[in-house]
Amino acid sequence: MTKTPITVAYGDGIGPEIMSATLRVLEAAGAELDIETVEIGEKVYKRGVDTGMDPGAWDSLRRTRVLLKAPITTPQGGGYKSLNVTMRKALNLYANVRPTIAYSPFVETKHPAMDLVIIRENEEDLYAGIEHRQTHQVYQCLKLITQPGSERVIRYAFDYARTNGRKKVTCFVKDNIMKLTDGLFHKVFDQIAAEYPDLEHETLIVDIGAARLANTPERFDVVVMPNLYGDILSDVTAEISGSVGLAPSANIGDGFAMFEAIHGSAPDIAGMNVANPSGLLLASVMMLVHIGQATVAERVHRAWLRTIEDGVHTRDIFRDGVSQKQVSTTEFADAVIARLGEQPQVLKPVSYREDAAIAHRKWQPVPKAHKQLVGVDVFLDWQPGSPDDLGHQLKAIGVGDLKLEVITNRGIKVWPNGLPETFCTDHWRCRFRKPEGAGVEPNEVVELQRKIVESGFDVIKTENLYTFDGVPGFSAVHG
Amino acid sequence: MTKTPITVAYGDGIGPEIMSATLRVLEAAGAELDIETVEIGEKVYKRGVDTGMDPGAWDSLRRTRVLLKAPITTPQGGGYKSLNVTMRKALNLYANVRPTIAYSPFVETKHPAMDLVIIRENEEDLYAGIEHRQTHQVYQCLKLITQPGSERVIRYAFDYARTNGRKKVTCFVKDNIMKLTDGLFHKVFDQIAAEYPDLEHETLIVDIGAARLANTPERFDVVVMPNLYGDILSDVTAEISGSVGLAPSANIGDGFAMFEAIHGSAPDIAGMNVANPSGLLLASVMMLVHIGQATVAERVHRAWLRTIEDGVHTRDIFRDGVSQKQVSTTEFADAVIARLGEQPQVLKPVSYREDAAIAHRKWQPVPKAHKQLVGVDVFLDWQPGSPDDLGHQLKAIGVGDLKLEVITNRGIKVWPNGLPETFCTDHWRCRFRKPEGAGVEPNEVVELQRKIVESGFDVIKTENLYTFDGVPGFSAVHG
Ligand SMILES: NC(=O)c1ccc[n+]([C@@H]2O[C@H](COP(=O)([O-])OP(=O)(O)OC[C@H]3O[C@@H](n4cnc5c(N)ncnc54)[C@H](OP(=O)(O)O)[C@@H]3O)[C@@H](O)[C@H]2O)c1
Ligand SMILES: NC(=O)c1ccc[n+]([C@@H]2O[C@H](COP(=O)([O-])OP(=O)(O)OC[C@H]3O[C@@H](n4cnc5c(N)ncnc54)[C@H](OP(=O)(O)O)[C@@H]3O)[C@@H](O)[C@H]2O)c1
Repeated sequence: MTKTPITVAYGDGIGPEIMSATLRVLEAAGAELDIETVEIGEKVYKRGVDTGMDPGAWDSLRRTRVLLKAPITTPQGGGYKSLNVTMRKALNLYANVRPTIAYSPFVETKHPAMDLVIIRENEEDLYAGIEHRQTHQVYQCLKLITQPGSERVIRYAFDYARTNGRKKVTCFVKDNIMKLTDGLFHKVFDQIAAEYPDLEHETLIVDIGAARLANTPERFDVVVMPNLYGDILSDVTAEISGSVGLAPSANIGDGFAMFEAIHGSAPDIAGMNVANPSGLLLASVMMLVHIGQATVAERVHRAWLRTIEDGVHTRDIFRDGVSQKQVSTTEFADAVIARLGEQPQVLKPVSYREDAAIAHRKWQPVPKAHKQLVGVDVFLDWQPGSPDDLGHQLKAIGVGDLKLEVITNRGIKVWPNGLPETFCTDHWRCRFRKPEGAGVEPNEVVELQRKIVESGFDVIKTENLYTFDGVPGFSAVHG
Repeated sequence: MTKTPITVAYGDGIGPEIMSATLRVLEAAGAELDIETVEIGEKVYKRGVDTGMDPGAWDSLRRTRVLLKAPITTPQGGGYKSLNVTMRKALNLYANVRPTIAYSPFVETKHPAMDLVIIRENEEDLYAGIEHRQTHQVYQCLKLITQPGSERVIRYAFDYARTNGRKKVTCFVKDNIMKLTDGLFHKVFDQIAAEYPDLEHETLIVDIGAARLANTPERFDVVVMPNLYGDILSDVTAEISGSVGLAPSANIGDGFAMFEAIHGSAPDIAGMNVANPSGLLLASVMMLVHIGQATVAERVHRAWLRTIEDGVHTRDIFRDGVSQKQVSTTEFADAVIARLGEQPQVLKPVSYREDAAIAHRKWQPVPKAHKQLVGVDVFLDWQPGSPDDLGHQLKAIGVGDLKLEVITNRGIKVWPNGLPETFCTDHWRCRFRKPEGAGVEPNEVVELQRKIVESGFDVIKTENLYTFDGVPGFSAVHG
């Protein structure tokens, strides 16, 4: 077997200890790795590199395309950027994969039967970080859901389920409220599900889904969802499994992948040789599968399960009556090494197929719909007066028959015929359209803005209204 | 005591049964109510009223300002609007209050010690329902967080905690990512907390907070949060308490209030006299406190606790070995009535103060900061070519020294000096500023758009950039 080049970062705090332990196990198990070590994290930040990652580290990553990463310490304050956020977006790591499994009765949990994988969209949603304050009272963040982003992560979830012998893929969305954005994610889910008739699929509204996930996680298998829901709910599942310190994660893209534990650098126990290396070790198992070394992955994972069963536990999971022996980080690695080749007796033995490295189908752009401009939402910062005053003044402004149709405040209609009780902020959305939804020219939108600005209004933002193959690409107005 | 006028809606499905049972208990307990009955729900929708609420119902509500509401059935399909969403926004019901309590050992739960109240902002956040699709690939929803909306719900949470003998208020936000929007909610929370030195307060990042809430809910008391987080997490807490069918909720505004069970109209068991009226009955207890009839509220609530303790249970919570007697809806109401005046022996007896109707301080607008226009984000629908091509073309367009500064795609910088690996959608944000952040005139923003449109670009939206007292009202660019 030729060696696979990978990039390794030892990180900060407990990072070096758990990385050394992990690499020792991998070597003893016969992993064929050609390791390039890079520096990331606190020291790099403090040298003034605001992303926490040396240019040399990017070069290594471009060669190997695989990063095994120990946790880092993000310095407090200052203009430091999150290394993880930067890497996910810059390297298009669109899927965040988090298996969460209960190891009952060896690790305490209220949910002994849980065994699920949350796959979370990893780059977009509210995490695009596009925020604006444009009035005294109102702050805004853009939630972006894209067709390619949704398709990639959902397809990955189905491929993952199939390759890993899972039976069902569940999708969580809130498309009863967010009909366009979450509606897109739901629609793409249904389209892709149809290509995998061998797998069950279902969609739940995220609030009900979250309630079931927290109360009866054993009913779920693979769960795919947009970024924010996944961020919240993968922390919930890790916590209720009883084993935050054991949980690995993978960040997957078409060209790159990054593997790490879900915990941080735990500076309070750094250098004490007590940290549990399991999260990182299980992440390295995911990495071995990813690079096509499934047999080694299986050997490591089974030996690890056997070690947990034998009650050889680091301090964080040691419980009197359940555990047999409390060990250090290095002793734990030795115990796993001593069990290479052994099988778990109680816990489910894992199996990985040699072809388990998921073959990524390239994303194909969807055929283009016919797009037509049919109006514009012009947003104003305006002092709370009556909505009727505002309606009256704006009605007089128009470009040809591009005229004021409706005004909303925080999404609820306040003109015409608003309810007098509705509280209004200083943030007004004024929708301009033509009769019968007729087409609008881009320069008419510009001209409209010119007139509104000239009339002394504070135009703070615009949102054009388009139809796509005749279907409105904008939500109807409430109220 | 003079009678308090209230509006009552019997709703659909099991609604009429549980409302009758509830009103019988209230009457027997000596509630002084002057009831106006209105029709809402399925029949009204089907008569063609798209909000599900007769104009006559609005009139009654304007008189009484209090609605006790049984669940309704929302017809599937068609352009029906959610009655709850419309009412919340139109009547400015800014706080959604959901107490969740475990009634162990009488009702099964994995979390016997939980006793918390989630208070959720109820009108804004992503629920403003402002969505736009402006390119082939990208869909957008606006998340709006406002100063008045945040202040009202947070102040309500502290007032609620103080009035109800609670000790701690916890805030959940994601302001490590959404520094402006969730940052505002956090800042307002800190400001208001300082006015309540008798109460503890803490803030948790929502993912970690959710994990703790799901695993150890007993560590929380009152928890306040923006709309979406609260929607998801109040369903989680209701479910894990073991008693979705017992949970009430209140929607509170300065001028109006609405009280209901959290469950729906359960059409499958309608008319069978088996539904549990407890959710609505406990909602009516919250209503009694709200209208200043605390003594009656206490009498009803204690008799109800005693009934549950005595094992007199409707079918949904009946368990062999725990329950004593399975009863119908009407028999359950009779059992509560028979126990009026009695106290619970095991469960915590509730107490309500006569002055427990929370005195609402009117919201005061904050002093205005100096607002200055300093640039604009112009968004384009542009075919994925290289970001450098786009940068090159846009650099040539400018108004005076209002020039292209940076381009991002899904929030990550792609020009200048982007990483070649970054995947780009057809949705580009192009930020135009002047050197050293100098001021911009509104007509320069219009003129800039005119030039960009004239150059053949598809401008899909704009977001102006402002400073407030010199502080940027827009997020910095990642990457
Ligand atoms: N991906 C990443 O690189 C990443 C992720 C999260 C956080 N961080 C960073 O890590 C730093 C510390 O964050 P934090 O304290 O919030 O979270 P943390 O590092 O996960 O540590 C929290 C606590 O969990 C326990 N713990 C975590 N990992 C453990 C292990 N492998 N074995 C045994 N115990 C373990 C320790 O508890 P006891 O004290 O009870 O032993 C530790 O104090 C911060 O700078 C943060 O930014 C980095
Ligand atoms: N605020 C509201 O008005 C509101 C809220 C939510 C839903 N809804 C509407 O209600 C309709 C039905 O929705 P859904 O079936 O999803 O939810 P649901 O009405 O809450 O009913 C779900 C199931 O919960 C049980 N259940 C609910 N309330 C119960 C009670 N008081 N006593 C005993 N069992 C009870 C029943 O289960 P078993 O079959 O096991 O007995 C029922 O089938 C829909 O039209 C929905 O739009 C209205």
